[in-house]
Amino acid sequence: MIVTIIGPGLIGGSIAIGLRESGFATRLIGVDRNADHAAHAVALGLVDEVRPLAEAIRESQIIVVATPVDSLVTLLPQVLDLVNNEQIVLDAGSTKGPALQAVAQHPQRARFVATHPMAGTEHSGPTAAVAGLFLGKCCVFTAIEQSAPDAVEVARRLYESLGMRITYLDGAEHDLHVAYVSHISHIASFALALTVLEKEREEDRIFELASGGFSSTVRLAKSNPDTWIPIFRQNRDNVLDVLDEFINTVSRFRTLLIKKDFETFEAYMRQANDISRIIDK
Amino acid sequence: MIVTIIGPGLIGGSIAIGLRESGFATRLIGVDRNADHAAHAVALGLVDEVRPLAEAIRESQIIVVATPVDSLVTLLPQVLDLVNNEQIVLDAGSTKGPALQAVAQHPQRARFVATHPMAGTEHSGPTAAVAGLFLGKCCVFTAIEQSAPDAVEVARRLYESLGMRITYLDGAEHDLHVAYVSHISHIASFALALTVLEKEREEDRIFELASGGFSSTVRLAKSNPDTWIPIFRQNRDNVLDVLDEFINTVSRFRTLLIKKDFETFEAYMRQANDISRIIDK
Repeated sequence: MIVTIIGPGLIGGSIAIGLRESGFATRLIGVDRNADHAAHAVALGLVDEVRPLAEAIRESQIIVVATPVDSLVTLLPQVLDLVNNEQIVLDAGSTKGPALQAVAQHPQRARFVATHPMAGTEHSGPTAAVAGLFLGKCCVFTAIEQSAPDAVEVARRLYESLGMRITYLDGAEHDLHVAYVSHISHIASFALALTVLEKEREEDRIFELASGGFSSTVRLAKSNPDTWIPIFRQNRDNVLDVLDEFINTVSRFRTLLIKKDFETFEAYMRQANDISRIIDK
Repeated sequence: MIVTIIGPGLIGGSIAIGLRESGFATRLIGVDRNADHAAHAVALGLVDEVRPLAEAIRESQIIVVATPVDSLVTLLPQVLDLVNNEQIVLDAGSTKGPALQAVAQHPQRARFVATHPMAGTEHSGPTAAVAGLFLGKCCVFTAIEQSAPDAVEVARRLYESLGMRITYLDGAEHDLHVAYVSHISHIASFALALTVLEKEREEDRIFELASGGFSSTVRLAKSNPDTWIPIFRQNRDNVLDVLDEFINTVSRFRTLLIKKDFETFEAYMRQANDISRIIDK
């Protein structure tokens, strides 16, 4: 298969590496409006060449759009304008509602499969692309009833060639779930980093003591705002709901500390320990 | 050197492994009031044998007290009651104020060096002990002016044999700094885990999507309440102050989302990105 990756960064570049390794892609074309990124993508061997959008699409059987979610909304209709009834378009967006809405009435809607391969790191750009990023992870397919069955089938084979398991959700469900299992973790991490960085102005030795636990909870605070601001903008309502619940939960811990009610505090901790059921599986 | 480890769990057991590997300890004796833990510590080879407290102390040159911080307050005076002017007592507590206060007037105070080797994982008990846990990490020595110089010197060599760098802080400074770089991370992680687990009751498929970012932020939520409740109890005032700042910071993010002020939101994220200066060094 000849595959175009629009936006060969962390996600698009890692997809490229995986598709080449699995043999799914025989040729990879990159499209990137950032000339530096485009050059890196070729130099790193993520794609074989970089081409303008229309040319790349003309030569490809599959087009993967892996840009930030704000660009996705304008790019997806443009890409669909250029594809025929054999070609397949996938996205990799972390939010699904606005992208689905942007193409809902497009005459080529059936050629698009809305997918979210759920993996990542706190790094970004082509240099962040890594082999095996998606192995064993979950890829969410949304609104597949609006996609042509042959397109869904090829998309399924593409992600399975990366070692992913596939889950089906509707767009609204997806956007709510990722607010819980991804977006709120990022805000908590950003807030934690800021809290400690602000203290550092008075206490310059504070970070001598930073240990592994601290590093793992603030790791996501290194994430790129160019990726994340569009996500928070598009998923604002869900993120706000989850943020309210998170603030309530943190405030419950605070109230228990004020009241010195360590019995209830401990009961909450033991409830939270149950998370090992999820993250150790 | 013959070393007794009181509480050969995650921390005490990992110290034992390191002291044996470096050759610092020629014989290791364990003391544990939990018979299962004691048996594990011997079976795993963390210590050569398990003995009652008084016997173990009598045979040792160094006694490391690595119990939860609530036991520390009662154990340290008992241990000091039993040591002569050649023996050295260390603790590994995550809070320093109450332990320092518990021994302040003890006639053998000078034989005690208050230390906090800052490393750990979310696991606990003898089976959690690992080689290399302390390598490259920071060990905080507090209130060393109250310890005999020879005791401080031996403690320094002991932790250096584990590959640690040593920092000196007073007890109050230590307890404030760890609230920022360790304790608050744990509460944020526990709250995040609880928030999502509570949602799971309605949305049973939510965790299918849990990815690496989620796992790293909630990893600490697996931590043992038996270790952490005594820490939160002893360091309650500092933790409350930091918790208030954290809630304020999260609430600022919330307000910006409500106002759709994504410019300021982005400016905060870019400030938080500066955390890479600390955790990537």
